[in-house]
Amino acid sequence: MEAVVKKQYQIDFGAVLSEVHVFAPATVANMICGFDILGFAVDYPGDEVQMFRVPEPGVRIRSIKGDEGRLPVDPERNTVSACVKMLLAHLGIENEIGVEIDLIKHMPIGSGLGSSSASTVAGLFAINSLLGNPLTKAELLPFCVEGERLACGHGHADNVAPALMGGITLVRGYDPLDVIKLPVPEELYAGIVFPKVDVPTRDARQLIKEKVYLRDAVTQWGNIAGLVAGLYEKDYALISRSMHDVLIEPTRAILIPEFYAMKDIALQEGALSFGISGSGPSVVAISKGKEIAERAATAIQEHLTRSEIESFKYVSSVNIDGPKIINK
Amino acid sequence: MEAVVKKQYQIDFGAVLSEVHVFAPATVANMICGFDILGFAVDYPGDEVQMFRVPEPGVRIRSIKGDEGRLPVDPERNTVSACVKMLLAHLGIENEIGVEIDLIKHMPIGSGLGSSSASTVAGLFAINSLLGNPLTKAELLPFCVEGERLACGHGHADNVAPALMGGITLVRGYDPLDVIKLPVPEELYAGIVFPKVDVPTRDARQLIKEKVYLRDAVTQWGNIAGLVAGLYEKDYALISRSMHDVLIEPTRAILIPEFYAMKDIALQEGALSFGISGSGPSVVAISKGKEIAERAATAIQEHLTRSEIESFKYVSSVNIDGPKIINK
Repeated sequence: MEAVVKKQYQIDFGAVLSEVHVFAPATVANMICGFDILGFAVDYPGDEVQMFRVPEPGVRIRSIKGDEGRLPVDPERNTVSACVKMLLAHLGIENEIGVEIDLIKHMPIGSGLGSSSASTVAGLFAINSLLGNPLTKAELLPFCVEGERLACGHGHADNVAPALMGGITLVRGYDPLDVIKLPVPEELYAGIVFPKVDVPTRDARQLIKEKVYLRDAVTQWGNIAGLVAGLYEKDYALISRSMHDVLIEPTRAILIPEFYAMKDIALQEGALSFGISGSGPSVVAISKGKEIAERAATAIQEHLTRSEIESFKYVSSVNIDGPKIINK
Repeated sequence: MEAVVKKQYQIDFGAVLSEVHVFAPATVANMICGFDILGFAVDYPGDEVQMFRVPEPGVRIRSIKGDEGRLPVDPERNTVSACVKMLLAHLGIENEIGVEIDLIKHMPIGSGLGSSSASTVAGLFAINSLLGNPLTKAELLPFCVEGERLACGHGHADNVAPALMGGITLVRGYDPLDVIKLPVPEELYAGIVFPKVDVPTRDARQLIKEKVYLRDAVTQWGNIAGLVAGLYEKDYALISRSMHDVLIEPTRAILIPEFYAMKDIALQEGALSFGISGSGPSVVAISKGKEIAERAATAIQEHLTRSEIESFKYVSSVNIDGPKIINK
């Protein structure tokens, strides 16, 4: 964040907006084969932040909807308000600006869809918009990563990067943070199903072994390289051949009921690939065209219903732009 | 090789050439960060095969030059002739065609420059050309991989793929063999130095541990993905940031005298990256532009001379076409 610190920001307090309403998208981290480095945003679902300027300095959470009472409203403990405070402190204006936040969640917490990332990105994009965009998206990103650290205990960027930048992102490395936007073949769709079972990110991470066989790592990075090439070439067959995870899926799939049955169904319906979204339990059938994604997600959901597992279904193209101001 | 087996080849014996002279390029496997999956061909050095049709069926080695007497002339044990025999048997014409081979090696054996691959590819390209090209390059590739297995004990494709296909190649996977040609930014040059010390491929492989830390593997595949993206974007800064090897280099560098001194020199001279070519001991300064590659290689060689280590130096752009017929 050295580059950010060195820059001097000029805030025109007269031009600060009185109100802003922001949507930030859910994200599918890992994109099957790219554990901890790849991810993409979807058009739907996503979280909303309504932010209001108030005379009294400070950051407060006014309301949270859609969280089933699970998120803290204490502005120090809520990651959205904590990140907004961090940004205001960074700009040196935490005693000069007051905001109140309504957080509206449209996706389940702990679903593997980057729920905390969407909220954090919405909050930071909102405060930046309210202030007249003093920071670029690239400059906002480290604050989003800090938000992820507050929410999950790890400063990963594989959800916040696509949530903020939009599209498909590669987190090449962290020292310094290096995020690259990859091309998005326009027929790429995600058929996402969230089985309502609880798989906390922390547990899903703890299952993963510290060491892996080099031969498996070589298989994995061959696939990752193939996927990146496939995205540039818009070669759906190559994308499909490449989206296999030999390292993480075998372990994490244990936590997800009916995983291999769902995989069979998705591939039978013609999906390019099927796997876990982030740390799960959401699963994703990445498909060429909306129709196949829809068919795969529907068939998976029907299977879960037969297995008496409640689920949500989302079908979306890749979101290109990331967060956006919602016009009312 | 199933697809190859199913195809019926028609050999027009009347059109078989009486003689062909082929050059096949040396290759830099791994391309710093892509262990076992990436590699590129260079214009120089390379090996030559002169192949003559003779009346008596069978494959014979007539002469070998430049090998310091290290390669077998027994056609069953020499990998060039053994591969040529394999291809003729595959075509079902091993009792109908006779050839004699002159092998001219222009690079040291055990140098880490794909010496055996260049010879194998030259031999197979020669017999295919002599026969009127019944096989495509893609169909020839599995035979080249078999040649590598004969020569090194492992059927790796990271040298034979670029030697045969030219350019920068990605071996996405082996089951089935899946090779993708990556774009070649035109200013990419290799400054190669071969320190005359003996590092057999087998020993270099045995040093590598069977298991690696997942966190290191993630760093590695972030870099691999970054390199592939950088090649497509022609983004030399991204290419440079990505070409780091945290997994294999620390172990293999032990076998190469003055490795870290050479690395410092190459980076000081402005190389994009520096690392081991294949399993070494050759090292490569991958550079933007011929001038920097030349300067880096020269400075490295001067350092080795001061350290009383004899060396060869090669400076080349990336070879685009792979093997070629030499006109005399």
